[in-house]
Amino acid sequence: MRGLKLTIAYCGANYCGWQIQDGQDSVQQKLQDAFQEVTGEPVRITGSGRTDAGVHALGQVASLQTNSQMECFRLVRALNATTPEDIAVLNVEDVEVGFHAIRDAKRKRYRYQIQPGRIPNPLDRAYSWFLPFELNVAAMEAGAKLLEGEHDFACFQAAGGVRKTTVRTIYEVKLEHESTGPFQKLSFEIEGNGFLYNMVRNIVGTLVEIGKGKQEPGWIQQLIDQKDRNLAGPTAPAHALFLLKVDY
Amino acid sequence: MRGLKLTIAYCGANYCGWQIQDGQDSVQQKLQDAFQEVTGEPVRITGSGRTDAGVHALGQVASLQTNSQMECFRLVRALNATTPEDIAVLNVEDVEVGFHAIRDAKRKRYRYQIQPGRIPNPLDRAYSWFLPFELNVAAMEAGAKLLEGEHDFACFQAAGGVRKTTVRTIYEVKLEHESTGPFQKLSFEIEGNGFLYNMVRNIVGTLVEIGKGKQEPGWIQQLIDQKDRNLAGPTAPAHALFLLKVDY
Repeated sequence: MRGLKLTIAYCGANYCGWQIQDGQDSVQQKLQDAFQEVTGEPVRITGSGRTDAGVHALGQVASLQTNSQMECFRLVRALNATTPEDIAVLNVEDVEVGFHAIRDAKRKRYRYQIQPGRIPNPLDRAYSWFLPFELNVAAMEAGAKLLEGEHDFACFQAAGGVRKTTVRTIYEVKLEHESTGPFQKLSFEIEGNGFLYNMVRNIVGTLVEIGKGKQEPGWIQQLIDQKDRNLAGPTAPAHALFLLKVDY
Repeated sequence: MRGLKLTIAYCGANYCGWQIQDGQDSVQQKLQDAFQEVTGEPVRITGSGRTDAGVHALGQVASLQTNSQMECFRLVRALNATTPEDIAVLNVEDVEVGFHAIRDAKRKRYRYQIQPGRIPNPLDRAYSWFLPFELNVAAMEAGAKLLEGEHDFACFQAAGGVRKTTVRTIYEVKLEHESTGPFQKLSFEIEGNGFLYNMVRNIVGTLVEIGKGKQEPGWIQQLIDQKDRNLAGPTAPAHALFLLKVDY
């Protein structure tokens, strides 16, 4: 028996998410199918966490156990020749058999892309959330900074979340704002030791309320203290969210 | 009678190009339809140049004459509410009635996006040319520099070009190379007083031959001197080309 760690990028637009669901196309299923086609062996591939329908990844990590002796670089090549073109296997490496992509994950980093402004860029529709108004980026930044550190993030956990504890540590948040001609791009990155169900999208929806001027930056602190999802902002759409990397 | 200058962005993926062609969707037709719907008046909208099928624009310019008295900012809003979402009207301004988007153009700037490397980024398929190998960017840059200045660019004019002269002046070429994780992006920008039919795509296809090591940078000078399209590199695909701006 041999343990393998896969690093994967995908466009989530055409999938029900990472996780296998009956009658729908999932990234997990496509990868398991590709692995079986390449090695002849049916395996279960465990992702570091499920990404929701429409969410993308540039560095998802998955683990599996196999009896295949195929060299890693050959597996990369063969899997990429077999997966659909919206899924790419970036790396395959040998790890100890006990390696588990969920349990052993130490840090994750996500990016969310917003496009504020008067007119949506017709070349940037697929991967960013268009908001037809200006945002106060400095206020959003001030609010976002309050997320850093160890906090109970129950206020940002979607209904249906089933984690034992809602305490997480956020190591870094970063907002970057750039303009190209008439178009703006606002990208939000967040890195932490773990994330609750829909947490990043709920944070982004909440920061946008601050960017609109409907709330002050200090609202973030209040929400954290109140621990009530119903008081926070709406959930931002999935198509502008990217899982960037997972550290072990 | 009133002259108007429009600045337009579009994703060319679903169009036969800028120019009206029977039985196909063109950007020109969609804009003329939108203008008529908004003002009730049929007009002819003249682009600074046709972009081919699949080519995109971030700053195409077009001219028209109209009797409509609608204010410019209202036209922007109404046109954007009427055009398909892959066409955006960025600006409308009053100009002298004689203004002509082709005849009066002084400079144009294009960008071409290449993605070299082993594995294609599944999130960057729509707008870049994937080449499954490494490119010698320094050699491409040295070759590209030989394009600057006034030259006879007959060697880069596609068959079917009907311009009176094939002499053009290139003011600037620029290559930028960046890596994000396992993915690379190579973007080529070129600005000149005018471009022959397919000239940018033929230049890019030729520079890629240099990047592959099949030719030396000095090949560009030889091709310019020889004036023979058949000796240059292949035509790069349309989907990675952007008309960035037109100056008047």
